[in-house]
Amino acid sequence: MHFDEAPVFPRGFRCASRNCGLKTEGKDLALFASDVDAVAAAVFTRNQFPGAPVILGRQTIKGGGGVLRAIVANSKVSNVATGAEGLANARRMAAATATELGTTPDRVLVSSTGVIGRRLPIEKIEAGLSGMSSDLQSDPLVGAAGIMTTDTYPKALSARAGEATITWVAKGSGMIEPNMATMLAYIFTDAAIDRAALERALRDAVHVSFNMLSVDSDTSTSDTCVILANGRAGRVDERQFSDTLVAGCIRMTEMLARDGEGAEHLIRARVSGAANEDEARRIAKSLVNSPLVKTMVHGADPNVGRLLMAVGKCFDCAIVPESTDAAINGYQVVRAGSRVDFDDAMVRETLRREVVDLDVSVGAGTASATAFGCDLTKGYIDENAAYYSS
Amino acid sequence: MHFDEAPVFPRGFRCASRNCGLKTEGKDLALFASDVDAVAAAVFTRNQFPGAPVILGRQTIKGGGGVLRAIVANSKVSNVATGAEGLANARRMAAATATELGTTPDRVLVSSTGVIGRRLPIEKIEAGLSGMSSDLQSDPLVGAAGIMTTDTYPKALSARAGEATITWVAKGSGMIEPNMATMLAYIFTDAAIDRAALERALRDAVHVSFNMLSVDSDTSTSDTCVILANGRAGRVDERQFSDTLVAGCIRMTEMLARDGEGAEHLIRARVSGAANEDEARRIAKSLVNSPLVKTMVHGADPNVGRLLMAVGKCFDCAIVPESTDAAINGYQVVRAGSRVDFDDAMVRETLRREVVDLDVSVGAGTASATAFGCDLTKGYIDENAAYYSS
Repeated sequence: MHFDEAPVFPRGFRCASRNCGLKTEGKDLALFASDVDAVAAAVFTRNQFPGAPVILGRQTIKGGGGVLRAIVANSKVSNVATGAEGLANARRMAAATATELGTTPDRVLVSSTGVIGRRLPIEKIEAGLSGMSSDLQSDPLVGAAGIMTTDTYPKALSARAGEATITWVAKGSGMIEPNMATMLAYIFTDAAIDRAALERALRDAVHVSFNMLSVDSDTSTSDTCVILANGRAGRVDERQFSDTLVAGCIRMTEMLARDGEGAEHLIRARVSGAANEDEARRIAKSLVNSPLVKTMVHGADPNVGRLLMAVGKCFDCAIVPESTDAAINGYQVVRAGSRVDFDDAMVRETLRREVVDLDVSVGAGTASATAFGCDLTKGYIDENAAYYSS
Repeated sequence: MHFDEAPVFPRGFRCASRNCGLKTEGKDLALFASDVDAVAAAVFTRNQFPGAPVILGRQTIKGGGGVLRAIVANSKVSNVATGAEGLANARRMAAATATELGTTPDRVLVSSTGVIGRRLPIEKIEAGLSGMSSDLQSDPLVGAAGIMTTDTYPKALSARAGEATITWVAKGSGMIEPNMATMLAYIFTDAAIDRAALERALRDAVHVSFNMLSVDSDTSTSDTCVILANGRAGRVDERQFSDTLVAGCIRMTEMLARDGEGAEHLIRARVSGAANEDEARRIAKSLVNSPLVKTMVHGADPNVGRLLMAVGKCFDCAIVPESTDAAINGYQVVRAGSRVDFDDAMVRETLRREVVDLDVSVGAGTASATAFGCDLTKGYIDENAAYYSS
């Protein structure tokens, strides 16, 4: 898969971002717009305390028949645990965006990310949206900058599927697991594709990418992944479209994991030999979620028994200890359930790589899965022990 | 419940500890012995890669008819993922202890704790055990010191149940969740109690104590909790015995959580209003396992939305958001699923207490449960990013 060196938008999409006064500095408001109505599909957090924008977003996607013109997002305040007033504020945010763009509120998807439980400063957002359509421009990174919270850089990707372009804009980077990663992931394409196919392609792609990402095992109340297809490039081969969508979602997942709060390494845990896909996914997640595996990678210390510990604590998964093998960056460290003599210095060296691949085969079947995570560092604690006051 | 200021052993129990050369300094070998055969019951880790001592221990407890004379334990090397040689070494450790004490190997429970995947230096242990019976003495803390790994102090408790004494000796302090906390918890009593009642009392006590403790969500391959009752104090009231056992197990659980790797706070999460006990336990565990809740406590920052996040990510539990309330150290911070205006400075101050109580009511029923955990600090990362090499 070839990704553009500098990300571009598909035909008919533009974005803008502003500081509307939620943050003391940096962009805190982003607008993504299609020139024409776009078919849309979305998946949201499964957290039982979804934010007001998620509650509204579910209605928008369903009630509006899956047609969107724009996405509006603010950072700094998530509008979660804010009750009826929060929902009213999310609606006001959609309405202000619709007015600015000359469309209807049911064609605007709203996202908010940031601190939970604080009232959304809707007046600032409404003032910020006023006149924002004149800022719309073609660089996706400008919009990506407007949705950042603790990300260290704005994230956007683009690639071709036939005549069409697919563009991903996302932000992480904590609290993303286990059912949605990417607190916010927006995907834009000019492919013409019907809603059912778009929804299917999105679900399939999210299943192997964002849903296999875990930064810290916590699950955001705001996670949203939405795709807009405005048809400007005409029909595309569905298979080619899906393959590109999957590849970009995985690439973005890796970017988000690598930029997890405080992270210094991307961890990819591939589990094979599982009894079924569900168990493969659970074991792979257990590996990337284990604090002891994460600190092992952080310390570049091949304490390989921790891999077996993290696999073995999946009590309900079929695992055959005497057929379990494990490798770190291709170096076998466990054979038949026992630690093997390996070149300690070599494995230690390889653990210093930015990307660390863990491969575990559990000897119970033929299913496999890959999970994406990051190491656990003091930076994570710095960011999260004082996030609220910052 | 009154616990002795300085812990003592029940009649007929003694212990000793030595350095046998596994650690460069400090005790690394501990022996606990009863003067007479004792009725025994035990629970072990559910990890699917149990250490050789756990595999052997299950046989010993079952095969020996639940009679023990002694426990022998080493720290530094856990004898996990060591294959057939590991099991043979665990047997040699039991045999050497039996010879030293003049009993049979099937009356000796073996534990090993420390690094996974390293060969057990059995020769050093055998040499260390030789003559160790002459060191046996009456202070439980001497034995507790012999089983420490990253604990910052040796842990023992004792209390009275009628004429009998119950004494707890344990070590933590990472990798303990979700089915056994306390990598090693040994309980001694001179009560006369039959095996079935002892087993029932142990399971009931572990259920609400060690099994509700989580330092980091990882689950040790070596967790062992065993109780020995030598009958020297005669029969006791079963109810009084059970109540004392529960109280001591909870007290020890709190000590282990508070001394979790790098921990500065004990977190007690009490969940009420759950649909059933299992869901109450899962939600309570979710709270103490959440890195974002743990760092919130560490930072003394009342980012209370994180409590809702941690509750809400229990996708399969009945939770009624609009009936969900939460309190921190008795200060209500969430009412009906929304953040309430609370005295921020006061709650911030109260979060600096050594013990932080989180109370969440989820409005779905009448079941409740309490989980025990600790904050997440840089100390945890220091200890675990370089545990192996130390």
